[in-house]
Amino acid sequence: MENIISEYFLNRRTIRNYKNERIAREKIDAMLLEASHAPTTGNMQLYSVVVTDDEHGKEALSPMHFGQPMVKSCAAVLTFCVDTHRFEKWSEESGTEAAFDNLQMFLCGVMDTMAFAQQFCTIAEMNGYGTCYLGTTTYNCEEIAAELGLPEHVIPLITVTLGVPGDEGVDVGRLPLGAVAHYGRYPQYKKGDVKALFAEKEGRDDSKGFVAENGKDSLAAVFTEVRYPRKNNEPFSEKLASMLKKQGYIK
Amino acid sequence: MENIISEYFLNRRTIRNYKNERIAREKIDAMLLEASHAPTTGNMQLYSVVVTDDEHGKEALSPMHFGQPMVKSCAAVLTFCVDTHRFEKWSEESGTEAAFDNLQMFLCGVMDTMAFAQQFCTIAEMNGYGTCYLGTTTYNCEEIAAELGLPEHVIPLITVTLGVPGDEGVDVGRLPLGAVAHYGRYPQYKKGDVKALFAEKEGRDDSKGFVAENGKDSLAAVFTEVRYPRKNNEPFSEKLASMLKKQGYIK
Repeated sequence: MENIISEYFLNRRTIRNYKNERIAREKIDAMLLEASHAPTTGNMQLYSVVVTDDEHGKEALSPMHFGQPMVKSCAAVLTFCVDTHRFEKWSEESGTEAAFDNLQMFLCGVMDTMAFAQQFCTIAEMNGYGTCYLGTTTYNCEEIAAELGLPEHVIPLITVTLGVPGDEGVDVGRLPLGAVAHYGRYPQYKKGDVKALFAEKEGRDDSKGFVAENGKDSLAAVFTEVRYPRKNNEPFSEKLASMLKKQGYIK
Repeated sequence: MENIISEYFLNRRTIRNYKNERIAREKIDAMLLEASHAPTTGNMQLYSVVVTDDEHGKEALSPMHFGQPMVKSCAAVLTFCVDTHRFEKWSEESGTEAAFDNLQMFLCGVMDTMAFAQQFCTIAEMNGYGTCYLGTTTYNCEEIAAELGLPEHVIPLITVTLGVPGDEGVDVGRLPLGAVAHYGRYPQYKKGDVKALFAEKEGRDDSKGFVAENGKDSLAAVFTEVRYPRKNNEPFSEKLASMLKKQGYIK
């Protein structure tokens, strides 16, 4: 049993290709119910998920995720949201006021939402389904909120596409454990130390392919100049910050 | 196999009591390695974990978590951190500049960190260990960062205590699935709808006990007036926001 578990976690992969097969809502609900037992701040469950499993709904969400093909080809799009609205409404109906319109409680909501979403992905994968996170959710937060009919204080955070796997996915590797795990204190890196931690990653054939395709000098430049450049990060941050400020989470 | 998995996820519990037994670093490393294969934004792994498994280190962290007994009684305290520092340093050593000092990339880091932390907790529980999240981490972010020697752009986000279980934990229940999962669009709640979703939770013996112990009129008031009151949420939010602003993640 322990070996099977270890094998699964070490070898799990993101799945971007799906078979044209639906997944019954009863099955999705059963997996979401299991996921809802993930840890959550003070047992408050400051999250919601909106499931989109009809063609019209997926079509509408597609441009908000920049047309990534998984949105239309998957069986269901799950938009995981930070939700303090439900708790605030419950408090109001109980005659008290929840002071959840601030950064700490928003961050609790983000952590609750991610623990729930990650637990769902693990459960789905262990049930033989394929999943893919779409980090584009916070780029078009307001548009997605409008499409899903979200009230104030329900913020789309991360999207998961779910489907029957159409392939086995690709092993993209990870940094050596020593790059991310430290005992006692964080290391004081000397010049060249960090570059050495990325050496294996830089040496991979896929990495070399990315560098060549993009006509860059280094793998780092593919990330900083093509995938996550300042000219994208900053306007999308302003857009997100403006939504969070309007709703009181950031002052 | 599927049933065993389902049973585990539905019945998992947070463990706050630990036996006085150490856990070998090799075992912790093996579980962290498995967890590092959790999904991560663009395969960037914008996180680090600092493991504190010596008495002196746990003693030092204890007041930063308001003396919660798990910090000293557990085998190891794992402080999971958002880390854009390593990626920025790699970029710099590669002759390019990572524009990660903004809200979007910070939030990517938060999501990466939580997926990693949650995967670790699941793995640890499946291996028979007990875990407990400490949400107090962001309350004393700066103090914890100093204690663990974190450089700029490494932000303590969430702490997990790990140990050999001293009891079976307590079933604290969850909201009915219909409270957190919706198909198509988020519901438009009418007066009383939300209160009804919390009825089962309010009816539990432990909930009634919390209300009585705290001399409150409702379970909601225990949360809003005792556990997460405005007079705590706001100063701790300002403290956290000031650290994030100083480091450029919030403008």
